[in-house]
Amino acid sequence: MNGAQALIRTLYDAGVDTCFMNPGTSEMHFVAALDSVPEMRSILCLFEGVATGCADGYARMTGKPAATLLHLGPGLGNGISNLHNGRKAHSPIVNIVGEHATYHLKYDAPLTSDIEGLARPVSGWVRTSPNARAVAEDGAEAVAAARTHPGQVATLILPADTAWGAAGGPASPQSPPPKPAVPEERISAVARLLRRGEETVLLVGDQVMCSAGVSELACRIAAGANARVVGNRAAARVSRGAGRPVLARLPYPVDQALSLLAGARHVVLAGAKDPVGFFAYPDSPSRLAPPDADIHLLASEDEDVPAALDALNEELGAPAAPTPAARLERPALPTGQLTPEAVWTALCALMPENAIIADESVTCGRQAYPHTETAPPHDWLHVTGGSIGQGLPAATGAAVACPDRQVFAMEGDGSGMYTLQALWTQARESLNVVNVIFANRSYRILQGELLNVGGDAEPGPRAQAMMRLDSPELDWVSISEGMGVPAVRVESADAYVRALSRGIEEPGPLLIEAMI
Amino acid sequence: MNGAQALIRTLYDAGVDTCFMNPGTSEMHFVAALDSVPEMRSILCLFEGVATGCADGYARMTGKPAATLLHLGPGLGNGISNLHNGRKAHSPIVNIVGEHATYHLKYDAPLTSDIEGLARPVSGWVRTSPNARAVAEDGAEAVAAARTHPGQVATLILPADTAWGAAGGPASPQSPPPKPAVPEERISAVARLLRRGEETVLLVGDQVMCSAGVSELACRIAAGANARVVGNRAAARVSRGAGRPVLARLPYPVDQALSLLAGARHVVLAGAKDPVGFFAYPDSPSRLAPPDADIHLLASEDEDVPAALDALNEELGAPAAPTPAARLERPALPTGQLTPEAVWTALCALMPENAIIADESVTCGRQAYPHTETAPPHDWLHVTGGSIGQGLPAATGAAVACPDRQVFAMEGDGSGMYTLQALWTQARESLNVVNVIFANRSYRILQGELLNVGGDAEPGPRAQAMMRLDSPELDWVSISEGMGVPAVRVESADAYVRALSRGIEEPGPLLIEAMI
Repeated sequence: MNGAQALIRTLYDAGVDTCFMNPGTSEMHFVAALDSVPEMRSILCLFEGVATGCADGYARMTGKPAATLLHLGPGLGNGISNLHNGRKAHSPIVNIVGEHATYHLKYDAPLTSDIEGLARPVSGWVRTSPNARAVAEDGAEAVAAARTHPGQVATLILPADTAWGAAGGPASPQSPPPKPAVPEERISAVARLLRRGEETVLLVGDQVMCSAGVSELACRIAAGANARVVGNRAAARVSRGAGRPVLARLPYPVDQALSLLAGARHVVLAGAKDPVGFFAYPDSPSRLAPPDADIHLLASEDEDVPAALDALNEELGAPAAPTPAARLERPALPTGQLTPEAVWTALCALMPENAIIADESVTCGRQAYPHTETAPPHDWLHVTGGSIGQGLPAATGAAVACPDRQVFAMEGDGSGMYTLQALWTQARESLNVVNVIFANRSYRILQGELLNVGGDAEPGPRAQAMMRLDSPELDWVSISEGMGVPAVRVESADAYVRALSRGIEEPGPLLIEAMI
Repeated sequence: MNGAQALIRTLYDAGVDTCFMNPGTSEMHFVAALDSVPEMRSILCLFEGVATGCADGYARMTGKPAATLLHLGPGLGNGISNLHNGRKAHSPIVNIVGEHATYHLKYDAPLTSDIEGLARPVSGWVRTSPNARAVAEDGAEAVAAARTHPGQVATLILPADTAWGAAGGPASPQSPPPKPAVPEERISAVARLLRRGEETVLLVGDQVMCSAGVSELACRIAAGANARVVGNRAAARVSRGAGRPVLARLPYPVDQALSLLAGARHVVLAGAKDPVGFFAYPDSPSRLAPPDADIHLLASEDEDVPAALDALNEELGAPAAPTPAARLERPALPTGQLTPEAVWTALCALMPENAIIADESVTCGRQAYPHTETAPPHDWLHVTGGSIGQGLPAATGAAVACPDRQVFAMEGDGSGMYTLQALWTQARESLNVVNVIFANRSYRILQGELLNVGGDAEPGPRAQAMMRLDSPELDWVSISEGMGVPAVRVESADAYVRALSRGIEEPGPLLIEAMI
């Protein structure tokens, strides 16, 4: 048994049964070893950013890590953007990066680079395995590291000789460390605060928003005090739709976020951070809470937030009054002009139960939440790290994770271009993904931001040209079909409804280019 | 004048007149400032790896830096792979990365990451500008750093408030440090060695191969001794074709490289390193020179190699005998089956004078050199860092640099998929690039490497599936047309010849999907 075989067996024994890969020469022994552990599902991606984005989407839907397999420093480089999103989503990912054989490194061959240096900014754990006998144990530790609450990217660097050398056998799974509990004093302090009845915002993060039950608990606590629940802006996964509580969510525009939090005397953080603007602007504050509001930490992102809310609820003795939840209400199908609102309304009308929405629609997504509130229960994935190129891969990974659920990738045309190779993997694996491209032929969000920076002055033509994607126009139908995903362009709400129905009915992927 | 305006003016005054960009919100002031310095040409790319690959190709053809503009850490991440190639090519690049406003960083907003940490592995110089008054001076220093012999990536990180704050004005251009000269003792030592007449290989790197004159000088020195000139494997730019000396080049397969160097008693390094395998293999040596050969450094990659060869030539008093050069010989146009050889033969028959070939054809390029030796003079760009996804962007940047020259991007279908968004920029800028895709529907090079690692055993079906791109088949014509580049699929040598002729005759880009 060589190191690669021992590693793959170890990963599988530790619960990692899927690997998204784009391998090269230095990873050939790992690839060859796939046939010795046939239980490991290996999924080929034609770009590393697709592989890491798939692993992120997969982790968000399963709560467990997939592995990646990337080719040295440049392959890792291509994967960094979506590892960044995965890091901000606290997604458990076992990120495996091939490397030159240990003894070859000192010669500085063309592909040599500082892989650990590249990995650290996006990884909670980094190790270069020293030899074939250590690699299985390192793999077991990488899985435990990835699964350390609330989840993180664990990068295991695999010199080629650790893969091809003789190993002692697979290593036993390791347990991740226990979730850090919230100290009782903090819970008592927040309970005392809430009992005072001053206007309070309970700001909740991923561990709350991903679960209807925990969201309901947060709402119940707030209802018993003079508090309201606000969800984080770019949550990893939001459980929403009919029968689930409706949480306000921090808007992207700074002025709207300031308005939402205005009047709060206190902000209690439950798995969220002191809220700040996505970007800074010359005349706007960085912090979004009212300047005179007090910030209180109930639980940090690294701690056990549901347990803290449970304890808080118990200490408060909050009444078990039912929390208002969204009702199921299918809107009428839109007709006439195709607008972003029509796209979302039709989705609300047609999405099957337990759908997954990977949302990278950027400006076109600003109205998405209100238009889909009454849809059947579903999960919503956001671009947690603001790193564009996440939507198509995350949808792909989510579809691998949940083959029985319908996935929708809601994409801007600009953002879709970053990792469009994901379409090929969707076709290859016959994944149930409907990809909706909001085709506005521009970096629309930047057009708005450019207007903001100009003050009174209209942006000049050279600046404006950098925001326009209309020369030449992208033809997403042609691009998609070129990668094996059937596609249709729609120019009216009626045509969009027909295309969306087809995408939901037919197995396998479809792309809809929505000309808005 | 704000910092962004002062910076762009400074860059332009220092000779940087082209910027390949994929900006985001934090770069909006830089973009808005483009209209205040209309001499700066800004070229939009739909993916950051395209922008950095363009800057690399541009630098190789002009010898001077272009700027990039990337969006925070994830945007830099997407650009790392081609910055790696640029670093190994010693390409001067002013790599500008936007960042949150200085005062916003401490809040750890979603896009916050360790940009310096990501930049260091691919940069020779890294600086985060501290304020708007410093940014112009930092820009001048970045240009000088990029132009430090033999060229390097200089990464300037630009917090948003350094762009929007008030600046004192542009900064004056700075001179890069002088080229390090080679000490006389080293030249004398090599001269003494060559006079001994023992079998010697003169291994030459980029500074020799990019110039027909310097290559000829190297050949003349070798001819006067018992020496032969061998060129580095992945040179940044090779000056070749009719009237220019024909250099042997280190082959990629280890056994072939060992054979080429066999018998050498000495290896003299002229801007090259002790030669090593591109990858390590279980039963092959890392070093390629005969184990008992002595290695002698004439000049390192950082030193002035042409000057060292001049001095060596003078000390040797080598005869000014003319060096054998390639004759112009246009081969007969191929007919019948379309093979890689036919693709190269037709290129040799049809390429106009001073063409530029960006070669990422991987396995299909193994026979490229002999088949194109007698073409008119041309420049050949290799994947210096082994980081795939370089060909289409480098061709795009080279075409921006040299609008009067015909560019050919010779691409594998697997490698082309990494940065296919370059096609859109080619269309937008009406660049004279003929993109030839060698469509073999596989990672053919990896199929070979996989066979190597298996020893006697045939690779299993799961491993083999990771090398196959045929399910679904990529349709490059459809993909290319979707990005605005006209395209044609050819299945015979005759059809290929017609398509190639069309691509050379017509202005603007064309893609040829060569079904081999």
